[in-house]
Amino acid sequence: MTTALAQDIDTGVGLVERRYATWTAPLQLDSGATLAPVTLAYETYGTLNAARDNAILITHALSGDAHAAGQHTLHDRKPGWWDNMIGPEKPFDTNRYFIICSNVIGGCQGSTGPASTHPVTNRPYGARFPVITIADMVRAQTRLLDYLGIQQLYAVAGGSMGGFQALEWATAHPERVRGAIIIASSARSTPQTIAWNSIGRHAIMQDPRWQEGDYYATEPPVDGLAIARMVGHVTYLSEISFEAKFGRDYQWEDSPKYTLKPEFAVESYLEYQGETFNTRFDANSFLYITKAMDYWDLSARYGSLEAAFSGSRASFLLLSFTSDWLYPTSESRLIVDALRHVDRPVQHSDITSHAGHDAFLVDVAPQRPIIRKFLEGIASA
Amino acid sequence: MTTALAQDIDTGVGLVERRYATWTAPLQLDSGATLAPVTLAYETYGTLNAARDNAILITHALSGDAHAAGQHTLHDRKPGWWDNMIGPEKPFDTNRYFIICSNVIGGCQGSTGPASTHPVTNRPYGARFPVITIADMVRAQTRLLDYLGIQQLYAVAGGSMGGFQALEWATAHPERVRGAIIIASSARSTPQTIAWNSIGRHAIMQDPRWQEGDYYATEPPVDGLAIARMVGHVTYLSEISFEAKFGRDYQWEDSPKYTLKPEFAVESYLEYQGETFNTRFDANSFLYITKAMDYWDLSARYGSLEAAFSGSRASFLLLSFTSDWLYPTSESRLIVDALRHVDRPVQHSDITSHAGHDAFLVDVAPQRPIIRKFLEGIASA
Repeated sequence: MTTALAQDIDTGVGLVERRYATWTAPLQLDSGATLAPVTLAYETYGTLNAARDNAILITHALSGDAHAAGQHTLHDRKPGWWDNMIGPEKPFDTNRYFIICSNVIGGCQGSTGPASTHPVTNRPYGARFPVITIADMVRAQTRLLDYLGIQQLYAVAGGSMGGFQALEWATAHPERVRGAIIIASSARSTPQTIAWNSIGRHAIMQDPRWQEGDYYATEPPVDGLAIARMVGHVTYLSEISFEAKFGRDYQWEDSPKYTLKPEFAVESYLEYQGETFNTRFDANSFLYITKAMDYWDLSARYGSLEAAFSGSRASFLLLSFTSDWLYPTSESRLIVDALRHVDRPVQHSDITSHAGHDAFLVDVAPQRPIIRKFLEGIASA
Repeated sequence: MTTALAQDIDTGVGLVERRYATWTAPLQLDSGATLAPVTLAYETYGTLNAARDNAILITHALSGDAHAAGQHTLHDRKPGWWDNMIGPEKPFDTNRYFIICSNVIGGCQGSTGPASTHPVTNRPYGARFPVITIADMVRAQTRLLDYLGIQQLYAVAGGSMGGFQALEWATAHPERVRGAIIIASSARSTPQTIAWNSIGRHAIMQDPRWQEGDYYATEPPVDGLAIARMVGHVTYLSEISFEAKFGRDYQWEDSPKYTLKPEFAVESYLEYQGETFNTRFDANSFLYITKAMDYWDLSARYGSLEAAFSGSRASFLLLSFTSDWLYPTSESRLIVDALRHVDRPVQHSDITSHAGHDAFLVDVAPQRPIIRKFLEGIASA
């Protein structure tokens, strides 16, 4: 990371580099399979202190990546996906903390995933990539912490599927986490979430171009992935944000054109989201990551949520959003209730927002002071 | 209808026949195009009285048809879709009322639609079928009433898109409607509903088998229509009904199989719904009917909902369901408020239910007494 340039551009974090760490030792997966080699793409912002106790791991959502803050080049049109939360004087204050963001295994942004080359066949894994879980993703991240020489995280923080990983860290690796920030997330995938994910997978796998996952030398299943993304986008918004963003507006004219083609603004938006997702995401990664999400059920694994949290040593902060119907407040409350039941320190803020699940990324103003204060409190906890 | 047999089978209505009425005169459509000939498939239950003033028109939802009650043969596995509401002593009491249910134009259950033969080319319309609106559907139904010699309906009743038609009847043909029952419906398609519909259309039209709508001699776009239906089914349920019906149960085993294939019960359910829908529904009809739904906006057409209702002479009953997030209670309230504002008689019941939008069809017990009483009241209104 080029800290010298950080002050020169207005993201605060400045220019950053994507880094990679690779391990040849097989990673044991929940399925019984192993994965080797394992590469994680990651980025860091700020400086690890001498005591090596100021590290915060940021875990990303389904379509996220390791690029959480700053810019890769001065010409980037957008900074990292959580740039408004990470940087000097921001809640994840790079003057105080050493921030790490790691791409998940199964992904397509530099970490080992279905598009990676199978070490034996020398061809892309495709659907021969092993099915992974949230626990597997976190298991890979523990290697990254070892590699960076970090025994214990000051905190781990993530929204949506990032929250799954943060919960996994705090429960499966309790000695390595002092604070856990879980935003717009859940201790399980609800049946409705599984339903949405499964429709996306169905759309990809029925696309003739999917070819059982072996499309890396041909045209990828762009139509299937577009549909999966369109479904996702509707679930990320709320009824109110749909009204505010699009209403019943037509995209081009003021009145119906009486055509089967898209003509409402909301249709154009979804088509655009579906198309552009194909430029940055791999359909097979969508299959693997959503499957990992669907398996996610902390309570089933430990017998109960209370049992899951009983060994945890972290302080917890949960943020939920009133209009988020994909990861509703009730899911956060289940976590809060279980933590209180086993006397773990926990704070919960249910933030009033119209932005639906997207609130996690777009309604940052109310989150900032809560996260800042929670992080400060960890030091004295 | 073979009334003699009606007492012998337990649906109450007994054996019924699908009937057809065809008009050669061109039907003027909202788009400016015309449609000819026009056939409507319909069924009737009960007897039209001498005064011809006891007729109730039942209007159906997106995937419904004219078969609302009774059985076509003694071997039918299921009676008509609203059999639990229509029959002797039931709310739509066939001892008192003459019940008509008409399939919509654009449909695929016997009425003129995209699968019908174009009179000039002698080939199926396909995507050359004119784009239609809810008003067009109702315009065709006015011909059916004329044909049956019914000047004025005792009532018109429908749920979901059936409610759109009932509202259209009461506003565009006010002199022909004494009572209107609007269930789990809305005076417009919300942007979120448009979004869901447009994803379904997108899935169908990107299916290579769609072939611009000309698939009647080849394999139809079964994958696209299945996806459209899967999306629909998720929107018809509620978070609570998902939990109750499926939870996080696996379909075959007790634990993950670590496969990309469907393995949760909810996934199997959706795949099954998608597949079976193809046995009874035409993908082009899905395109045309959802487009008609998306255009539906009573307020835009009249300038305001109050203006839309100011000429109406009907009494209104609105039923909504607390867990219906597709046609939420707030949409019914907009109608109720507008009707009260122009001093039209209106009752509204927001029924507590966990069944989501499906409540309209599955939670009939609380609806029965309300509808029965409302219908009785029309006589004295």
